[in-house]
Amino acid sequence: MSRGTTPVVPQDGLSTRERRLRPVLIVHTGEGKGKTTAACGMAMRAWAQGWSVGVYQFVKSAAWHSGEQDAFKVLADSGRGEVTWERMGTGWSWTRANRGPENKADAEQAAVEGWAHIRQGLAEERHRFWLLDEFTYPMAWGWIDPAEVVEVLRQRPGTQHVVITGRRCPQVVLDLADLVTEMTKITHPFDRGQRGQAGIEW
Amino acid sequence: MSRGTTPVVPQDGLSTRERRLRPVLIVHTGEGKGKTTAACGMAMRAWAQGWSVGVYQFVKSAAWHSGEQDAFKVLADSGRGEVTWERMGTGWSWTRANRGPENKADAEQAAVEGWAHIRQGLAEERHRFWLLDEFTYPMAWGWIDPAEVVEVLRQRPGTQHVVITGRRCPQVVLDLADLVTEMTKITHPFDRGQRGQAGIEW
Repeated sequence: MSRGTTPVVPQDGLSTRERRLRPVLIVHTGEGKGKTTAACGMAMRAWAQGWSVGVYQFVKSAAWHSGEQDAFKVLADSGRGEVTWERMGTGWSWTRANRGPENKADAEQAAVEGWAHIRQGLAEERHRFWLLDEFTYPMAWGWIDPAEVVEVLRQRPGTQHVVITGRRCPQVVLDLADLVTEMTKITHPFDRGQRGQAGIEW
Repeated sequence: MSRGTTPVVPQDGLSTRERRLRPVLIVHTGEGKGKTTAACGMAMRAWAQGWSVGVYQFVKSAAWHSGEQDAFKVLADSGRGEVTWERMGTGWSWTRANRGPENKADAEQAAVEGWAHIRQGLAEERHRFWLLDEFTYPMAWGWIDPAEVVEVLRQRPGTQHVVITGRRCPQVVLDLADLVTEMTKITHPFDRGQRGQAGIEW
């Protein structure tokens, strides 16, 4: 990405340094690939700054394992920046709803408790960079009130950057965001079917 | 990202394992943020697999410094996967063309030599995961022939995954790609101007 000058000089009376210290809310949404991976790339930058980084995964179960998590473990162990990685979900999603209502209730409770944990952490300024991965889904499913999320994020103290990923982000959260990027899958002229899958699942 | 089953079972006679070992070409393009950061997230996954990872930055100068590079240095030093990071450009771009034609000639030469280096590496199967960052620009500017890139990528031996990032990707490269994701900047209802900038430049 370019580090070029911005096209507009804001009339906010702040210095460039002050403006950079403003906390930002970023949303990666859309049907395409790259929402989580781009957020992980940003978390790497935050780590490189020596910041405390918190990654909170919703929806994905505790059994879910990712290369990113391994990488952040190594980065955290290097002592440059602190990295916290927690999973809030229990792997439930609508497509697996036929596993029974108790499973759904567990997942909802895990998400609600996860959000309470994050809300508390924001009040305590636990991290400078927060990644709330797939956090759009518990909001879209009605488990967590988007209006409350907006209120908590709006009033978060200090300089806490927050990145939210996932499809179907509620409009009130998009409205609050400083930057929204939509990842769009471009339909391919040839039907390559599973070939793209290999690069995603490795 | 979901690890769910794919909607279509391809009629290619391959096992799931064989299909996963197929080399893929992925392009991150579009005007939005996240093209490079998403590719870096994929490189983390590749590293976590213990693969040899090669990151080749075009356009950005050798003076350009990024948190991702620091992070991959730490990851490489951990001994799990080998990471090579090289910068091919000399920082030239059209917006800085008024610095003089000799600067442009240097940048073009650096890009052409960089591509020759990569072409050689692909023939030698130097990496299992290649990130050609901002590689679309030297193609778009006419410095590197997209048709030649397509031919080299199409004939690359072994299992070498390649991710290309940047705006204005030539159509022939898009046509070859197994997966194309477009990062789209969503225009915001409020004009927050520089506020988004802070989260990108840190």
